[in-house]
Amino acid sequence: MKLFRFGPKGQEKPGIQTPDGKNLDCSSFGEDWNENFFANEGLYRLRHWLVDHQDSLPEVPKNARIGSPIARPSKIICIGLNYRKHAEEAGMQVPEVPIIFMKATSSLSGPYDPIFIPKNSKQTDWEVELAVIIGKRAKYVSVEDAMDYVAGYTVHNDVSERDFQLRHGGQWVKGKSADNFAPLGPFLVTTDEIPDPHNLRLWLKLNGKILQDSNTSDLIFDLPTIISHLSQYMTLLPGDVISTGTPSGVGMGLKPEPRYLEHGDVVELGIEGLGSSRQVAMNDPEA
Amino acid sequence: MKLFRFGPKGQEKPGIQTPDGKNLDCSSFGEDWNENFFANEGLYRLRHWLVDHQDSLPEVPKNARIGSPIARPSKIICIGLNYRKHAEEAGMQVPEVPIIFMKATSSLSGPYDPIFIPKNSKQTDWEVELAVIIGKRAKYVSVEDAMDYVAGYTVHNDVSERDFQLRHGGQWVKGKSADNFAPLGPFLVTTDEIPDPHNLRLWLKLNGKILQDSNTSDLIFDLPTIISHLSQYMTLLPGDVISTGTPSGVGMGLKPEPRYLEHGDVVELGIEGLGSSRQVAMNDPEA
Repeated sequence: MKLFRFGPKGQEKPGIQTPDGKNLDCSSFGEDWNENFFANEGLYRLRHWLVDHQDSLPEVPKNARIGSPIARPSKIICIGLNYRKHAEEAGMQVPEVPIIFMKATSSLSGPYDPIFIPKNSKQTDWEVELAVIIGKRAKYVSVEDAMDYVAGYTVHNDVSERDFQLRHGGQWVKGKSADNFAPLGPFLVTTDEIPDPHNLRLWLKLNGKILQDSNTSDLIFDLPTIISHLSQYMTLLPGDVISTGTPSGVGMGLKPEPRYLEHGDVVELGIEGLGSSRQVAMNDPEA
Repeated sequence: MKLFRFGPKGQEKPGIQTPDGKNLDCSSFGEDWNENFFANEGLYRLRHWLVDHQDSLPEVPKNARIGSPIARPSKIICIGLNYRKHAEEAGMQVPEVPIIFMKATSSLSGPYDPIFIPKNSKQTDWEVELAVIIGKRAKYVSVEDAMDYVAGYTVHNDVSERDFQLRHGGQWVKGKSADNFAPLGPFLVTTDEIPDPHNLRLWLKLNGKILQDSNTSDLIFDLPTIISHLSQYMTLLPGDVISTGTPSGVGMGLKPEPRYLEHGDVVELGIEGLGSSRQVAMNDPEA
């Protein structure tokens, strides 16, 4: 299944996209795509409910805003330096264990929402990433069992302010957490549609020019390793997002000069089987 | 006002403690002490509602479990190395700007719940901290205005696994986020009861012996500076927790040998005007 959410920010309604591309309003299912939904076998119940109800669901208006495919989760955890060439372009060592950091969940936004360039930012950068959505509570999970805890996958732009991240005093979260720094979606695609998440092309374009182009087969730490590792340190809750790292081609690493986002820049990104998203960068109107 | 929550974990009900020490059940107010409550002038409405209703509220049973005084927030942000002597005992430089890191909100627990020593932990440590609860959305806030965004204060034990934090590969969140690593409470004490949050004694005892004993007057970065600083990097939401750093006397810094928590150890901690909490360390039953 392909799940999405639509409507004004903070008031999103749940929807699904059918295999023939129709966007259907699932409000009558009576649940949002949130922690409780995943925790209570929501995907299983939805699948069965759709058998009887899909034909009578209204279509979503073509001009509806698309939101994040899941409601605000308890956490967004990101894996740093998980592609070899990206570690090199960042001037950092290839890690021996997964590097993890958090992104404030208040940064969550829809796949076509603008990227807000924060006040005093000079180095707002892009990062296409495969994100995993957790399907059930995971604690001390083995590598062998880890994939049982996955609900699905989505596209994430792990927007990053490099100066805030690296030169404003300790801990990357400072450069990862501004509003609209986590465009997610368009869809949560359930695991049954992605038989091999370790062989997906992922790409990102800036103003039509392709800058990131890689494959999840190049991940240093694969999904079971990441999920198992994280679950030794904290309990993953249903609906939590794990963003698995970005390949090379971010603005910070461009030669001969780095290139950062400016007001009006268009970022497009996508992952094979998961669709694509598009954000226009703009100076934060609240700045 | 002193707000608290009581009942089984995940099913807590709201309560207040009266000036004469009675614990009253506020379930009939119809709201939990959560993001929506704070966002919608909940403290103001509660105060007025109590004028008419306080006398008829049932008392909370004496043996009720006390939970975190607020529902799970969008984020728990911690300030690192914010007392000079603690930076020294940690072998780190006194920072020039606030060091910030996140704690997974799944680590939230009640003030008398056990501390779970995680699987494979050898260095579970304590940290008494003054925590600030945000009262309204804060973004790009000035130092001058920052205190207007505070709902109140509480006691936080920023439990930390030092080996996970410092030697398991990048970013402190790894050592800060295990279940029950964030005992909060007993109360959220509203700002009107704490005229000067920068002159409060804070202390922590291990098995009856005092190990941390300092005053918030020793904070390197004061509350307005911290709140303003954070709000430049991320939007603070109502109910968010900011833990302002710990003074010296943590297990990692003890001479001649560090001392870490063992099954059965009793930790007590408190802050002037905010009450005290008590946790017994135990090996995580899920490990």
